[in-house]
Amino acid sequence: MTVELICVGTELLLGNTVNTNAAFISEQCAMLGLSMYYQSVVGDNAGRLERLLCTARERSDVIILSGGLGPTQDDLTKETAAEVMGRKLVEDKRAKQEIQACLEKLGHTITDNNWKQALVPEGCKVLYNANGTAPGIIIEEKGTCMILLPGPPNELVPMFQEQVYPYLRSRQPEVICSKMVKLCGIGESAAETAILDLLAERNPTVAPYAKTGEVHLRITAKAADEETAGSMIAPVEEELYRRFGDCVYTDDPDVTLEEAVAKLLESHGLTITTAESCTGGLLAGRLVNVPGISGNFKEGYITYSNEAKEKLLGVSHATLEAYGAVSPQTAAEMAEGGAKAAGADLCVSVTGIAGPEGGTQEKPVGLVYIGCYCRGRVFTEKKLYSGSRSKIREYSVASALTFLRKVILDETAG
Amino acid sequence: MTVELICVGTELLLGNTVNTNAAFISEQCAMLGLSMYYQSVVGDNAGRLERLLCTARERSDVIILSGGLGPTQDDLTKETAAEVMGRKLVEDKRAKQEIQACLEKLGHTITDNNWKQALVPEGCKVLYNANGTAPGIIIEEKGTCMILLPGPPNELVPMFQEQVYPYLRSRQPEVICSKMVKLCGIGESAAETAILDLLAERNPTVAPYAKTGEVHLRITAKAADEETAGSMIAPVEEELYRRFGDCVYTDDPDVTLEEAVAKLLESHGLTITTAESCTGGLLAGRLVNVPGISGNFKEGYITYSNEAKEKLLGVSHATLEAYGAVSPQTAAEMAEGGAKAAGADLCVSVTGIAGPEGGTQEKPVGLVYIGCYCRGRVFTEKKLYSGSRSKIREYSVASALTFLRKVILDETAG
Repeated sequence: MTVELICVGTELLLGNTVNTNAAFISEQCAMLGLSMYYQSVVGDNAGRLERLLCTARERSDVIILSGGLGPTQDDLTKETAAEVMGRKLVEDKRAKQEIQACLEKLGHTITDNNWKQALVPEGCKVLYNANGTAPGIIIEEKGTCMILLPGPPNELVPMFQEQVYPYLRSRQPEVICSKMVKLCGIGESAAETAILDLLAERNPTVAPYAKTGEVHLRITAKAADEETAGSMIAPVEEELYRRFGDCVYTDDPDVTLEEAVAKLLESHGLTITTAESCTGGLLAGRLVNVPGISGNFKEGYITYSNEAKEKLLGVSHATLEAYGAVSPQTAAEMAEGGAKAAGADLCVSVTGIAGPEGGTQEKPVGLVYIGCYCRGRVFTEKKLYSGSRSKIREYSVASALTFLRKVILDETAG
Repeated sequence: MTVELICVGTELLLGNTVNTNAAFISEQCAMLGLSMYYQSVVGDNAGRLERLLCTARERSDVIILSGGLGPTQDDLTKETAAEVMGRKLVEDKRAKQEIQACLEKLGHTITDNNWKQALVPEGCKVLYNANGTAPGIIIEEKGTCMILLPGPPNELVPMFQEQVYPYLRSRQPEVICSKMVKLCGIGESAAETAILDLLAERNPTVAPYAKTGEVHLRITAKAADEETAGSMIAPVEEELYRRFGDCVYTDDPDVTLEEAVAKLLESHGLTITTAESCTGGLLAGRLVNVPGISGNFKEGYITYSNEAKEKLLGVSHATLEAYGAVSPQTAAEMAEGGAKAAGADLCVSVTGIAGPEGGTQEKPVGLVYIGCYCRGRVFTEKKLYSGSRSKIREYSVASALTFLRKVILDETAG
């Protein structure tokens, strides 16, 4: 089954908004095993949208549209789709009640144009919207299925996950199952090189998704039933575990690296603190992404100046003089001093040259040392990154989480 | 002049990558006063790309393509575009030399397929690439201009800014000038409501771009020459300053809010520290985005637990008991205590409930207090946000920077 995506919105054509909906819907369709060959963006213009819809009908089985379902005159996705599919618009009672309830809850005055959102193409399936006033719509016609979704991601994403995904899945002649394996501590090309044979397979497929400092691998199988699909995925998953070992930090698509680290801390009853120089708080910021981290993380130190490294972490003046702030020695003393200051079992430290200034021949921009203290022992790691100041800092944070995870695994093993 | 964008890449159709190139190119084209009516994404497939190019040729004056210029068999944007435009591919000497130099510098072995990147359509304009091996290409033909750009953003962005932007600008019969005015401390809809009359104007236009906690307004004028365009922009800019006053933090498109704050600190010779609870380091992380902040920012405190607020910031136990950690009283004591601990002129503090758990009727998820100490005086501000944990934390950081800026402006006035 082929699917095509049309995003409607002048804000996309002006570059005011990055089209995250397209990436989200594309990934979901790939998970469903649908083949997407085209994506388009058009403005709020009935003529251009109509021409695009006619072309799309000829070349794709399913057309997903996002945006243009609002209450204003500009919003004409629904009207145009209904026209192309030869349907009249009729009022949907439940949609009308939900719009009224939603606007009253927000304390908004209801104006006449709000009722426009309660109109739907005759005979369509209505996707009620728990997060806004625009219902989604599915129009089925011999040979074509059009799915209209509201543009705001906080409405589109749950509507897709809860209503569109199961709908599309039920229309697939085969069952599609997928499993995510998330890696850290290995680069994208190294990961791909290690599984070139698996990447070439057609069923199950393995698709890599690169994130900052991480690689996510999705295994997807098509089969007659879930059991068969599951039994096709299992050996591939095992093979990925075999090839990547401890680099696999989770097989849960919703678990982030910081959550995996937080879970390790919790299960071993370990407390942690952070001692950051060039990352300036971003590492602690990621740990605090995890709700409930307060049991393991109480406080963190941002020591951007040498004086702060001495004062807050007890890094010795002599070390800073002899080796400089960006050195394994300083990273080690930061980690040890941070753990002592906070009374924590662990401390992870980061010190580096994020640039764009401050690099030398010996210590170039992008040089970063990570330190990790764990119950009496200190470990350090050297990294060298290229790119902008913010890229270097982002990668440093990902490396620090990865290194921290490795130290916990090593020190709690056996 | 109309422009159309075609992004080539299977990774976009699979949702592996968010299409930031589309947003960047669209914004640049809007700045150039070009009208964009269509954007498309296709995979690395010659047949589909060819059909799309033929359609695009009929409806647009300029076609910009990104991606598919790599050295592998899959990369066929150049071959397909040359075919559609009826051009042979010929070797470009300088491109060949640069590819060799680039690969040697990276220490890569040069393989035969690398020379594919030195082939260009006969009679085209070559855009040499300082950041990679794929040269960009401009093919001009009566009625149509095709511009081919490499897909990686770190190659595409500078190539567009340095070579494509001036080229397109020179082809415009009129001069296009634009000016950016960036606002903080005002919401998107409040900002738009205040300038509905200006948003309706056609020349100069005013276009709003919403960022987290900020609104950027771009004024764009078309005129016969730069002087005339400038004189059309000036009164609109003045009007924006008049309507938004101190909410305007810069008119430099490259200056971020944290840079504007850093500049204020520097010009008044003020030192600052941070005391963060729910934002857990993200606020300090934004200040450290600014290269050279070290003169004003030496250290910061992440005090996620109540004990850390007492120990590191000297918040009184009685205050925490009586008012709770999320209260104006605690925010004030955090700010005052942070400044004293760091010996800084200023300290900005954040304490709030980022969720998803921990909210009550009285103190719901999204409630955030910001404190700011400035040379003996303390100020606090209450905020209420909705959204995910990470959204609430991001908005809190933007608000803290905005509040800090306001306090510095107020306290240094006169």
